[in-house]
Amino acid sequence: MSAMRTLVRGGTVVSATGRRRADVLIEGERIVALLAGDDRGTTERAVGGDGEVDRVIDATGRYVLPGGVDVHTHLELPVSGTVSADDYTTGTRAALLGGTTTIVDYAGQDRGGGLLEGVERWRARAAGRTCGDHAFHLMVTDVRPDVLEEMADVVAAGVTSFKLFTAYPDTNYSDDGRILAAMQRCAELGATVMMHAENGIAIDVLRAQAIARGDTEPIHHLLTRPVSFEAEAVHRAVVLAEVAGCELVIVHISSADALAEAVAGRDRGLPVFAETCPQYLWLAIEDVPDGIDGARLVCSPPLRWRRDGHQDVLWDGIATGRVDVVGTDHCPFTWEDKLRGRGDFTRIPNGVGVIEHRLDLLHQGVVDGRLSLERFVEVACTAPARLAGLHPRKGEIAVGADADLVVYDPAATHRLSALTHHMAVDHSAFEGLEVTGRTETVLLRGRVVVEDGEHVGAPGDGREVPRGPNTLPMAEPGGG
Amino acid sequence: MSAMRTLVRGGTVVSATGRRRADVLIEGERIVALLAGDDRGTTERAVGGDGEVDRVIDATGRYVLPGGVDVHTHLELPVSGTVSADDYTTGTRAALLGGTTTIVDYAGQDRGGGLLEGVERWRARAAGRTCGDHAFHLMVTDVRPDVLEEMADVVAAGVTSFKLFTAYPDTNYSDDGRILAAMQRCAELGATVMMHAENGIAIDVLRAQAIARGDTEPIHHLLTRPVSFEAEAVHRAVVLAEVAGCELVIVHISSADALAEAVAGRDRGLPVFAETCPQYLWLAIEDVPDGIDGARLVCSPPLRWRRDGHQDVLWDGIATGRVDVVGTDHCPFTWEDKLRGRGDFTRIPNGVGVIEHRLDLLHQGVVDGRLSLERFVEVACTAPARLAGLHPRKGEIAVGADADLVVYDPAATHRLSALTHHMAVDHSAFEGLEVTGRTETVLLRGRVVVEDGEHVGAPGDGREVPRGPNTLPMAEPGGG
Amino acid sequence: MSAMRTLVRGGTVVSATGRRRADVLIEGERIVALLAGDDRGTTERAVGGDGEVDRVIDATGRYVLPGGVDVHTHLELPVSGTVSADDYTTGTRAALLGGTTTIVDYAGQDRGGGLLEGVERWRARAAGRTCGDHAFHLMVTDVRPDVLEEMADVVAAGVTSFKLFTAYPDTNYSDDGRILAAMQRCAELGATVMMHAENGIAIDVLRAQAIARGDTEPIHHLLTRPVSFEAEAVHRAVVLAEVAGCELVIVHISSADALAEAVAGRDRGLPVFAETCPQYLWLAIEDVPDGIDGARLVCSPPLRWRRDGHQDVLWDGIATGRVDVVGTDHCPFTWEDKLRGRGDFTRIPNGVGVIEHRLDLLHQGVVDGRLSLERFVEVACTAPARLAGLHPRKGEIAVGADADLVVYDPAATHRLSALTHHMAVDHSAFEGLEVTGRTETVLLRGRVVVEDGEHVGAPGDGREVPRGPNTLPMAEPGGG
Amino acid sequence: MSAMRTLVRGGTVVSATGRRRADVLIEGERIVALLAGDDRGTTERAVGGDGEVDRVIDATGRYVLPGGVDVHTHLELPVSGTVSADDYTTGTRAALLGGTTTIVDYAGQDRGGGLLEGVERWRARAAGRTCGDHAFHLMVTDVRPDVLEEMADVVAAGVTSFKLFTAYPDTNYSDDGRILAAMQRCAELGATVMMHAENGIAIDVLRAQAIARGDTEPIHHLLTRPVSFEAEAVHRAVVLAEVAGCELVIVHISSADALAEAVAGRDRGLPVFAETCPQYLWLAIEDVPDGIDGARLVCSPPLRWRRDGHQDVLWDGIATGRVDVVGTDHCPFTWEDKLRGRGDFTRIPNGVGVIEHRLDLLHQGVVDGRLSLERFVEVACTAPARLAGLHPRKGEIAVGADADLVVYDPAATHRLSALTHHMAVDHSAFEGLEVTGRTETVLLRGRVVVEDGEHVGAPGDGREVPRGPNTLPMAEPGGG
Repeated sequence: MSAMRTLVRGGTVVSATGRRRADVLIEGERIVALLAGDDRGTTERAVGGDGEVDRVIDATGRYVLPGGVDVHTHLELPVSGTVSADDYTTGTRAALLGGTTTIVDYAGQDRGGGLLEGVERWRARAAGRTCGDHAFHLMVTDVRPDVLEEMADVVAAGVTSFKLFTAYPDTNYSDDGRILAAMQRCAELGATVMMHAENGIAIDVLRAQAIARGDTEPIHHLLTRPVSFEAEAVHRAVVLAEVAGCELVIVHISSADALAEAVAGRDRGLPVFAETCPQYLWLAIEDVPDGIDGARLVCSPPLRWRRDGHQDVLWDGIATGRVDVVGTDHCPFTWEDKLRGRGDFTRIPNGVGVIEHRLDLLHQGVVDGRLSLERFVEVACTAPARLAGLHPRKGEIAVGADADLVVYDPAATHRLSALTHHMAVDHSAFEGLEVTGRTETVLLRGRVVVEDGEHVGAPGDGREVPRGPNTLPMAEPGGG
Repeated sequence: MSAMRTLVRGGTVVSATGRRRADVLIEGERIVALLAGDDRGTTERAVGGDGEVDRVIDATGRYVLPGGVDVHTHLELPVSGTVSADDYTTGTRAALLGGTTTIVDYAGQDRGGGLLEGVERWRARAAGRTCGDHAFHLMVTDVRPDVLEEMADVVAAGVTSFKLFTAYPDTNYSDDGRILAAMQRCAELGATVMMHAENGIAIDVLRAQAIARGDTEPIHHLLTRPVSFEAEAVHRAVVLAEVAGCELVIVHISSADALAEAVAGRDRGLPVFAETCPQYLWLAIEDVPDGIDGARLVCSPPLRWRRDGHQDVLWDGIATGRVDVVGTDHCPFTWEDKLRGRGDFTRIPNGVGVIEHRLDLLHQGVVDGRLSLERFVEVACTAPARLAGLHPRKGEIAVGADADLVVYDPAATHRLSALTHHMAVDHSAFEGLEVTGRTETVLLRGRVVVEDGEHVGAPGDGREVPRGPNTLPMAEPGGG
Repeated sequence: MSAMRTLVRGGTVVSATGRRRADVLIEGERIVALLAGDDRGTTERAVGGDGEVDRVIDATGRYVLPGGVDVHTHLELPVSGTVSADDYTTGTRAALLGGTTTIVDYAGQDRGGGLLEGVERWRARAAGRTCGDHAFHLMVTDVRPDVLEEMADVVAAGVTSFKLFTAYPDTNYSDDGRILAAMQRCAELGATVMMHAENGIAIDVLRAQAIARGDTEPIHHLLTRPVSFEAEAVHRAVVLAEVAGCELVIVHISSADALAEAVAGRDRGLPVFAETCPQYLWLAIEDVPDGIDGARLVCSPPLRWRRDGHQDVLWDGIATGRVDVVGTDHCPFTWEDKLRGRGDFTRIPNGVGVIEHRLDLLHQGVVDGRLSLERFVEVACTAPARLAGLHPRKGEIAVGADADLVVYDPAATHRLSALTHHMAVDHSAFEGLEVTGRTETVLLRGRVVVEDGEHVGAPGDGREVPRGPNTLPMAEPGGG
Repeated sequence: MSAMRTLVRGGTVVSATGRRRADVLIEGERIVALLAGDDRGTTERAVGGDGEVDRVIDATGRYVLPGGVDVHTHLELPVSGTVSADDYTTGTRAALLGGTTTIVDYAGQDRGGGLLEGVERWRARAAGRTCGDHAFHLMVTDVRPDVLEEMADVVAAGVTSFKLFTAYPDTNYSDDGRILAAMQRCAELGATVMMHAENGIAIDVLRAQAIARGDTEPIHHLLTRPVSFEAEAVHRAVVLAEVAGCELVIVHISSADALAEAVAGRDRGLPVFAETCPQYLWLAIEDVPDGIDGARLVCSPPLRWRRDGHQDVLWDGIATGRVDVVGTDHCPFTWEDKLRGRGDFTRIPNGVGVIEHRLDLLHQGVVDGRLSLERFVEVACTAPARLAGLHPRKGEIAVGADADLVVYDPAATHRLSALTHHMAVDHSAFEGLEVTGRTETVLLRGRVVVEDGEHVGAPGDGREVPRGPNTLPMAEPGGG
C-alpha cells in the first residue's frame, strides 16, 4: 500500500528567511514537494490528479509554519517529594495544541548513579505516552571520572547535550572544576553544554538569611536571586567554556545583564548560544501578587523588574540575533504543590506552565512589532531544531523533512487562562492575557493531530527523535 | 507556447538554514517546485514525464546554491578623469562566472544635480548591457532641501537605499547635519542608509602632511587612514542614525574596531547592519609591496595590519552573525590608471577587483572551517537579497523565486590570477591564491548563462530588478 | 621693612590626601611653615613670640582649605550683542566670597584675528579689576596655518591651554581637520586641549527643525541637544587626540554617557581628563519650569534628565576619580538678556551663574556622603591648579605656596538665592537650595580679603598668574 | 628630658600632589614643622638656634620621600613543611634598606581555629624582632558562624582587613557563599576585604591534568593558571562585594584582564581597589628559564606573557589611577625549598623576593617616563597607608605624622642581584637589572635607621601600628 498523501494548499509558508505562497505536498511522514502556489498547473501535475491525494488542507489566509520545537521542558519531573504537573501525555498534548510538535525534555542523572540509566529511566517514562515527538538532553548532577567516560555512550545513544548547574547546591550543582572537566569532555565529543547559570552557592546564603529574618513569602524567592548572580554565573561559564573549547548554551536567560555576558562571549568569537523563555519576556516582579499567591510565579531564575528594562532588552535580543532560541522551561506544579511553600518560600516547587503558549506569546511579539515573522519562526522552530541536532528533520518546511506543520491563523484572538488551557495545572502564569494568533491545524509527521484547535491524535503518536550535533555553530566542523 | 522547463537534479540544495538533497523544477523564469530528491516518484510525477522537461541538469555531487547577490559594486564609475575598469558587460559577466547573478551598483548624484537624473544616467548606462541582473543604490553627494524632497521619488522608482559619505571631502562628503537630515528622511520613507564611514576631514589632514613630508608612496595611502578614524565614523553614524530612527548599513568594514562599533549599536537594539568585503578578509598591509606596485592594493578603507588580528575578527564576525553581508566594493582600475599615483598616492584611483571571486573566497572560509556552509550562503546570497529588498525574488532557492541557481563544485581547486580571471583589469589583488570550490553552471531566471565555467549568455541577458524595503530588519514593519 | 606675618591657628588643614590639625604660618604672600598644631612649643618657637606675628586668625573648629581654583569661567564675555553679567570685579568678588581665590577665564580669538591679540584684549579687560587671582585659557575659533604657528607664542606668554569647539558652527566651531591640526600642535608644545564636546553641526539641524515646527520654548533648547550628541563628540575628540598625541580635557561634562567616553579613553592609557560643573550635579531637566522662565536654566551642554541617573553617575565619577576637576562654566546673563529668547530659544544667551557656589555645592556632597572631604579639596582646589599649570603656587596648603587660604565652617547652613548672592545676576539657578558649609575667612596671597563672610578687599587685589604645563599628567615629562 | 630634634634640610619633599623645596623638623617621633626651605629665617627661627637641634641631615639634591608602605608581605610564612625565607628581622631590614618603613603582613587563621589566636600567633612572632614598623591583615581560611562573630574582635584589635581566597582549595579557599557572608560582615564592621582572585577550583583541574600528562616543569605552573581564571575571579569577587556592600581590594593583580574587571567595578561606582606588584610590572613568562631554574619565578598569580601587553597595561593603570597601590606579595623561598618542585611543579613553594626593591623598581618607572614622581609616591607610600588605615600617621610627610622619611638619591644607579641584596634568599627574580635611584638615609619615627645605605638600627626598632579603617574610600563615612 502506498503512503498517505496530503496537500496543504493555499497558505503562506513561513521560514526563517522569508514568507511565500506555496503548497506543501506530503507523502507518508515526509514533505516531498514544495510547489509554487500561484501556479496551479505545477501543483496539480505534482499531485497527479485529485484522486491521488488523500487529503487536502485548505490554508488560505493562514500561515503554514514548521512545527514548533521546544528545547526546554520538564515533564513528570520528580522534585522533592512531588512531580511536575504535566506528564508526557498532557504536556505534549498541550504543546501540540500550541503548535509545538517536538520537545526536548531533560532526563536526569541521580547523584551516585550513572548517565545512561538516567536516560533509560526517562525514556521508559515517555515511551508510548507522548502526543508529539520528543528527544532528550541529560542533566549531569554528579561529575565523576567514570561519568566523564560514560558521556561518550550517551552521545552515541542520541543524547548530545549535557546540562550543568551552577545553582542548586543541594541537588544539581557542580563546582567549577567539575564543570570544566565536563566541558572538556563535551569538546572532545562534539557535544553541547546547557548551563543553568545562577550562583547557587551565594544565593543559598541570601535565602537562609531571608528565612532567618522572617522574609518567607514567595516574593522573597525572587528578591534573593539577584540579577548580578545570574550574570556572574554566565560570565564564569563562558570563561570555563573558552578554556575547555566547548559549545555552550546559556538556558532560560532572564535578565539583560545575563544576556550581555553571553553576547560578550559570542562577540569574542566563542560558540556561546542564548535561550530565553516567554515568561521572562512577558512577566516581571511587578506582576507578582503579595502573599502566597505569588507562588504561582515562582521559578528560577526568577522574574525580573520590568522597570529595569529586562523585558525590552530580551525582546531586542531576539530581534537582533543575540538570543538564539526561545524554550519554555515548562515545569508547572499544581496549586496544592505550590502551597507547600506557605511560610517558607524555599519549599515552593519552582516552575511555571508555558508549553502551550510559546508560539502565541512570540507571535504576539510579531503583532506588537517587536520582531519579524521570519525571526519568530527562526527562534521558535528552526534554530531550536538546529541547536538540538534535530535538523534537518525538524524545524523547517523543506523537502525531505518530517511533515510537522502548523496551520496558524494570525488574526484569531483568544485569552490565556487556566479555565481554557490544556496543561494539567490549575492556574496560569498568564491568566487573562489576550493574544492574537492561534494554532488551528497541526500535522505530526504527515498526520493531522490537531484539527480546528482540538486534539484529534492520541498518546503514543509521538516518537523519540535521535539527536545529532548542534548545527547552529558558526564554523564548519572539521575546519581550521 | 508554454514556458521552458528545466530540472536541476541530484544536487545538495543549500540554504541559510540547512542543506538537503532536492531537485529543483523551473518553469520559465521561476522555480515552481522543490522536490524530495530521494523520492523519484515525486520528482517524476511533478515533472510529468521526461518529455515535458526541456532540460535536465545533473547536479550530483554538487551544491546547488542560490545565485549570489553582490550589494556593493561600482561598474563604469567615473573617477577624476578616468573610469573604473569593468563596464556593465565585463563586470556582470565576471560576476556570473563567479556565481553572482545579481549586483546592486551605486548610481550617483552630481553635486548641484538632482537624484533621479543620477539614477536615470546610471540606468541608461546599464540598460541592455548587463549579463546578470542588476539594481541600484544611490550615492547622495549634495544634501539639499529639494534633494530631501526628491528622495521619495527615488524610492518610488525602486531605489530604496541612499549612500552617504563621511569621507572624501572634495567629492562625496556630507557633514553631520546633512547626514542627520538625510537619515531622518530615510526613516520617513522606510529607506536604508548605506554609510562609507571614515573621518575624511581628519584623514585629509594626515594625507596633506604625508605628501608635504615626502611620504608619497602607495603604502602611505594605507598609513594615513587609521583604523580609529574608521571606527570613529561608524560610531558617529550609529549615533546619528539612532537620533534619526533610520536603518543603517555600514559598508565595507575593514577593521575589528569598526565592526565593534557597529555591533555595539546592534547590541543596543538599533537596526544597524554590517557589510565587509573579501579583500578585508584575505589581504592586509603586510601584503602591500614596496613602491608603486603597492598601488594594486590601494582601496578605501584601506587594508589593515594582519598582526593586529583584524582578519580573524572579521571572519568571526561573519560566523557569529555580527557581519550581515559580504559585498565586494568592486572598483578596479587598470594598471595604467593606477600609475597616475606615481609620486603622489593621493592620485591613485581607489579600488580593487573582486566581483568574480566573492563566492570562492568565502567558500574557502568554509573549507578552512571559518564559517559553516549555511552561513556562507546566507552572507553571500540570502542576507544581501533581503538587505537590498530583492527578496523573495532573489537570494534563496524557493518556490516562486527567480530561478537564479549556481551549481557549485565544492572540491574543484583553481588559482586566482589576472591571467585567468574575467574582470577587465590587468592585475589581481589575489594573484596566485589557490582556492577550493568553483562555479560550474549558472542559471539566470531559468536560462543557463554559464556552462562548465564558460559564459554562454550575452550582454542584455540581465535586467534591472526593482527593489523593495530591507527585509532583514528585526522588527515587523508597522509594529510598536 | 619685613613682610607681614600671619598665623592661622587651631584649624584642621585639609589636603587631597588627608586632614590634620596644623597651624599655618604666612610671611608676605607665601606660606612659610606648617606647624604641628598640637605642639604649642613648635608653633610658638617658629613664630618667635607674639610680637612677631602681625595677625593671628583663629580657625578652631574650622577647616582650613586651599583657596579654590575655578578653571572654567567666562567673565564679561561678549555674546551676540550683549555680555555675560559678571565683570572681572563682580565675578572674582563672588568667587572669593565662595572660597575661590583663583579663576582661569577663557580669552578668545576673533575669527580672522590672531591669538595673542585675543589674549591681550582679555588681559587688558581684567588688569587691575579682579579681586582674586586670575589666569587665562584661549578659545581658538579660527585654526589657520599662521594661527598654528602663533600657538607657540601664546604658550610662551603663559597661556598653556587652547579650547576648541565641536559645537557652535556659527561662531566657535572647528571641523575635525582643524581640531586634529591644533591638537598636533598642542602635542608639540606640551599644551593642553580643552574641548567643548557636542556635535554642533547635527544639533543645529534639530534646532532649526524645532523652531520650524513651533517648539520655541526654553525647554526645547534642552531637548534639541541630546546626550548622545555630547557623548559622540567626546568619543571623536578622544580619537583625534589619540592620533595627535596630545593631552585632552573634556570640559563641562553633563552626562553619564559623555563621562563614559572620556573614561574609556583614560582606560586605554590616554591623557584624557574630565571636568564637570555643579549645575550638572545638582540640576536636571525636571527642574526646568515651563515657559520663558526656563531660560534661567539654559546652558550648553544642557541639563539632563535626573530620571536617567546622570547626576548619580557624575557624583560617583568625582568620588572614584573618573572626574578630575569641577569648574563652573560661570556665564550668567541678566534676566533682561535671557528674555531675548522669548519666542525663540535659540536667542537665549547660554549660561548660568555658579562661581560663588562651587565649594558649597561640592561640600554639600561631602555632607551627603557622596565624596570624601579630601576628594572635595582635590577636585575643587588641587587638581584644577595642577591641570591649569598653576601648581605648586596654587591649589594646596604647602610651604612655599601662595598663601591662598579659606577658613571654612563645615557646620554653618545657608540658603542660596538671588536675594543674597553676590554675583551680578538677578536670578539664581539654585534659588532656595539650603547647603551646609560656608566660607568664613579668605586669604589671598597672605592678605585677608574676606572676613566673616564679607569682602574686605578691593578690585585690583588680584593678579594674573602665569601658567605652566598641566602637571596632572600621568607620565613624567621627558620619559619614555 | 626633652625629645630629640632633627632637621632634614635642603631636600625636595615629594608628596602625592607635588614636589617642593622644604625643610622637615622632627621632634621625637613626629614631624612638627614643614618649613619653606628657601627662607632661611623661617627654618632657623622655628629651629630656635643651632644648639636646639640634635641632628641636621643634609638632603640637598635629594628627594625626601615619605617612608614606603608595603601592604602585602608574608614573612616567616609557614607553607607546607617549610617557611618563607625572610623572617621579621631580615625582611623588615631589607625593606628599610629599600625605603619601606612600614609593612602590613598577613597573619593567618588555622582551619578549625579562631581568628584572634591567629593574630596573636603572628604578633608574638613579630614582637621585638622587626627593624621597621609593622601591622597585620588577617587571612581567613575557615569562615564559620563563630568566625563571623569574632571578626568584630579582630577589628577592635587593630586588624581591619580580612583576606579571602578564591584560590588554593586545599588550604585557603572559601566558596562563594562563605565569601559573601564574610563580605557582608566586613560591610557591617567597616572592614576591608582583600581578595586573592584566581579560580582555584578550576585551576586545580588543569594542574592535575598537566601532571598526569607529564607536564611537570615550573613553566607549567604558569601555563595552568590562565589569565581568564584570574579575571573571572575578580569579576566574581566584585559581584559578591556589590551585593554585600563592602570595600574590596583585589590584591596582586597580574594581568590586563584582571585589572579591567576591577576597573569595571570602580566605574560602576563601587569601592573596588586594585593592587599590583613590581614582579608583574617587570617580569613575564618570556623571562622564565627552561627546566627547574624556572622555579625561581614561580608565584601566584603567575607572571604573564609580555607579548600580550600585560606589563604596559599595568604601568598605564598605575599612571592613570586604575591601580591604587603597589605592594610586593614578598614571599621568597630558598633555592633548596624551590627544588622541592623538581619533577612536580605543584610542590614548588610559591613566591618571589621583592620587599627591598619596590621603591627602586617603581622609581625606575618614573625615570622611564611611565608615571610621574608624585604618582610614584602616591602608589608606594600615601595610598597604601590610607588603604591600610595607617594614615595620617604613615604615608605622608606632614606635621603631626610619624617621622618616617627616606632621603632618596634619584641619580644613583645600582644593579639588583642576589649577591648584594639584603633579603634572606639566595637568588633574585631581578638578577642583573640596573636601576636608577637609591635609598640613602631612612628615618623611622625620627631615628636614623639607614645611613648611606647601611642599616644602623636594630631588631626591635619596629613597632606594630594599630590600623583604622581604609581612608581611600570615595565617600565620606556616615554619608548618604
